[in-house]
Amino acid sequence: MYAIDFNSDIGESFGAYKLGNDEEILKYITACNVACGWHAGDPVVMDRVVKTAAELGVKVGAHPGYPDLMGFGRRQMKLSFAEAKNYVKYQVGALSAFTAAYGLKIHHVAPHGAMGNMCQDDRGLARAVCEAVYEMDPEIIIYYCAGAVLGEEAEKIGLRSACEIFADRAYEDDLSLRSRKLEGAMVTDEDEAIRRVLRMVKEGKVRSYSGKDLDIRGDTLCVHGDGPKAIAFAKRISEALKKEGVEIRAFE
Amino acid sequence: MYAIDFNSDIGESFGAYKLGNDEEILKYITACNVACGWHAGDPVVMDRVVKTAAELGVKVGAHPGYPDLMGFGRRQMKLSFAEAKNYVKYQVGALSAFTAAYGLKIHHVAPHGAMGNMCQDDRGLARAVCEAVYEMDPEIIIYYCAGAVLGEEAEKIGLRSACEIFADRAYEDDLSLRSRKLEGAMVTDEDEAIRRVLRMVKEGKVRSYSGKDLDIRGDTLCVHGDGPKAIAFAKRISEALKKEGVEIRAFE
Amino acid sequence: MYAIDFNSDIGESFGAYKLGNDEEILKYITACNVACGWHAGDPVVMDRVVKTAAELGVKVGAHPGYPDLMGFGRRQMKLSFAEAKNYVKYQVGALSAFTAAYGLKIHHVAPHGAMGNMCQDDRGLARAVCEAVYEMDPEIIIYYCAGAVLGEEAEKIGLRSACEIFADRAYEDDLSLRSRKLEGAMVTDEDEAIRRVLRMVKEGKVRSYSGKDLDIRGDTLCVHGDGPKAIAFAKRISEALKKEGVEIRAFE
Amino acid sequence: MYAIDFNSDIGESFGAYKLGNDEEILKYITACNVACGWHAGDPVVMDRVVKTAAELGVKVGAHPGYPDLMGFGRRQMKLSFAEAKNYVKYQVGALSAFTAAYGLKIHHVAPHGAMGNMCQDDRGLARAVCEAVYEMDPEIIIYYCAGAVLGEEAEKIGLRSACEIFADRAYEDDLSLRSRKLEGAMVTDEDEAIRRVLRMVKEGKVRSYSGKDLDIRGDTLCVHGDGPKAIAFAKRISEALKKEGVEIRAFE
Repeated sequence: MYAIDFNSDIGESFGAYKLGNDEEILKYITACNVACGWHAGDPVVMDRVVKTAAELGVKVGAHPGYPDLMGFGRRQMKLSFAEAKNYVKYQVGALSAFTAAYGLKIHHVAPHGAMGNMCQDDRGLARAVCEAVYEMDPEIIIYYCAGAVLGEEAEKIGLRSACEIFADRAYEDDLSLRSRKLEGAMVTDEDEAIRRVLRMVKEGKVRSYSGKDLDIRGDTLCVHGDGPKAIAFAKRISEALKKEGVEIRAFE
Repeated sequence: MYAIDFNSDIGESFGAYKLGNDEEILKYITACNVACGWHAGDPVVMDRVVKTAAELGVKVGAHPGYPDLMGFGRRQMKLSFAEAKNYVKYQVGALSAFTAAYGLKIHHVAPHGAMGNMCQDDRGLARAVCEAVYEMDPEIIIYYCAGAVLGEEAEKIGLRSACEIFADRAYEDDLSLRSRKLEGAMVTDEDEAIRRVLRMVKEGKVRSYSGKDLDIRGDTLCVHGDGPKAIAFAKRISEALKKEGVEIRAFE
Repeated sequence: MYAIDFNSDIGESFGAYKLGNDEEILKYITACNVACGWHAGDPVVMDRVVKTAAELGVKVGAHPGYPDLMGFGRRQMKLSFAEAKNYVKYQVGALSAFTAAYGLKIHHVAPHGAMGNMCQDDRGLARAVCEAVYEMDPEIIIYYCAGAVLGEEAEKIGLRSACEIFADRAYEDDLSLRSRKLEGAMVTDEDEAIRRVLRMVKEGKVRSYSGKDLDIRGDTLCVHGDGPKAIAFAKRISEALKKEGVEIRAFE
Repeated sequence: MYAIDFNSDIGESFGAYKLGNDEEILKYITACNVACGWHAGDPVVMDRVVKTAAELGVKVGAHPGYPDLMGFGRRQMKLSFAEAKNYVKYQVGALSAFTAAYGLKIHHVAPHGAMGNMCQDDRGLARAVCEAVYEMDPEIIIYYCAGAVLGEEAEKIGLRSACEIFADRAYEDDLSLRSRKLEGAMVTDEDEAIRRVLRMVKEGKVRSYSGKDLDIRGDTLCVHGDGPKAIAFAKRISEALKKEGVEIRAFE
């Protein structure tokens, strides 16, 4: 029996600013990555999405990012080890007040934006993220992008980890996502995207942009909640996977 | 046997900005109120002071404030009930990541600055603070200033509470602190200050500015860590209390 | 010949967050109030809207607010006179770099949200706003809501001022806007709204919610740019006014 | 006749946080670089230091930095060209409100911290800074560190520029400052420091750490205002230069 977790980034609204469609996408996913107020999100938003997730039985993870609201956490910042570690701890802790209030625990941590991207190669940063999480609660799972050193650092320190894959993105030969600035970065054909996901889950393989067959571990699939098209695709891929004998369930 | 808790606000440095003398005052107190990054403090500072408090056996409480770093949380803001409640939850949660990392739990919550002052009379705000704390962890104690409705709201919701007193401040007839803008706000004579504290602890009485004898409950004494004079006074009052049979120990 | 200025709040997007429809509403207005990065807006947004306004010949004013991005500047804050004054100066100055780059000058200043509302009655705050503007450039015009002490303070200090009216809001007997929390706050019938504006401009009169005829000076009409309905109404009222012999032109 | 400008970073306090000794160092310098509220400084501080500078006849320049108060602007951030350009424009504009209020104009712009360091090599960033300044007011001078591409970009776009030198720092062979992490980064002997400055000003030469004689243009000398020792050195070097026939006057 095959299984995969569906995750999505949520709670990215801030004050008067609305982003995404949290209530809708929460119906199709098994785990959510909640912004923690630094690159997006605020405490009122966090409370609302954690409440909804709790009602729907969706696992709640933290989505910590750089202290850069103006750049939505998408700009690289060079932090010291202590800064990165304590910034992650702070944000995960902040979210834990809301999960505690609804009888939940923090299920996982998935770094956002530039912090997430830098965890692909930057072993010091990846280690800082893992130390923060481990010291706070060693039961928390690390979600990392396929190929990232973050997965290795999680394993080293003794944290469980889940490898995240994307349905709509092309992979380079080192498993990094092909840059959106380059041609062929996106898999735009939905049938093709679904076939790729099925192969990643069932065979543990993906064809890279250059044409190589790569080993890949698909523990959790990132789906998007922005716009009606994204919601429709989340629904469609969910049905396609179930039909092919792949259960959609939270990573444990 | 008489006993009193000594508390102090700490962790108020921010990035390159240093404030207070945390390492020094932590030697003389039994509980600390740690700024949580909104009106003061940052995650690196929080980590350092919680570590030191853990080493010295000092109980760690949260000192949440308004989202107003530029005003050090000292300016009134009109928040909705939901905003106030979730802002407190967020800050206490953030601190809880650091206490968890050092094997501690959040001992108490003491609202800072304008939020603390407004909890003297604003029952809605006081209720919001208490709901935030109760939902997160009903074992957490509320520290409130003598006379504040915050103490009543804590009791109503089922939280333990500790009444905070000041050695160096004059009281009005309603137990509110005499405004610093008025003459006679400060008790400048140290011997007088010590006699007042002893009477509050042993007799539960204090003489108001207007000359009335008021009932007061002195569970925890606020001492300051700014400057060498403050540290010296903390030391002196500590010795005086012990000599008079008053134990300095954390409120339970 | 009658004339009125059309103004609208613009530039309220922030980073990844989009708000309003600046490019569209700028086609129908003669003056805009640009958010300055404290309650909304960021430098990239400011540059874009000032550029578009310059191309369309729309006068550019500053829309300073409280340092409260999370509350969109809609929450009351108690600032000192010096704080309020310098905060306004800072924000107007920031905008002036963009107007200078496009060969424009700051045309007016209109306080936003809670700062604007508090300028209805708070003479100290109103004075602080006017001093900030006057010291920076005495040619700048103050936009104030009908009935606000801000208009009186502007006159006292020697600044020109323009009285702002609303098509879709009911007035109380003191010319303050009827609170949105009360019944009858909004004028929902568009024909009625247009008739009211015409009467304010031509006769200088408005019927209050309680039924009294009040004197009112209508120098500038606030129109909204949020949503297709708002744009359609801006267009419709613009045509109706022109047909009735009221020119739409910037206040000088 | 030889001449040099003395400059210092000032206005770095923020709210309740005090940093530096602005009033004291302003007595010894001819130009100041004022923090603009992003990495340090706030509008109340800006008003106070610009007022004092105006009274003492010190030229006022802007010291824009990254939007990183928690890191004091010392951490690298990867901004787009448009972001960097508009962020500089915003900050210089904000300061210009205060200079205007005291009858001054912005004299120069000197990027702070990580932004300043990255202007040593990053031509795109340097160009963004220069475009921002040029579009706002082409009379403003760019202060750049010896060897920085910022100086070249200023010249290309048509801005005047002043080359900044340090008394207490060693230079590498490419004129970059020797990293503080390496041995020999600081010139600790005051007499030696003064001799080096005299040689830079009179001969246009400096001996690098490796022992090479390098060409260097010393238009403005950076002096520090932190602590009594720094003030004393500013005074001492000022006297030594005057005695050797070097006039201390603002760069024009």
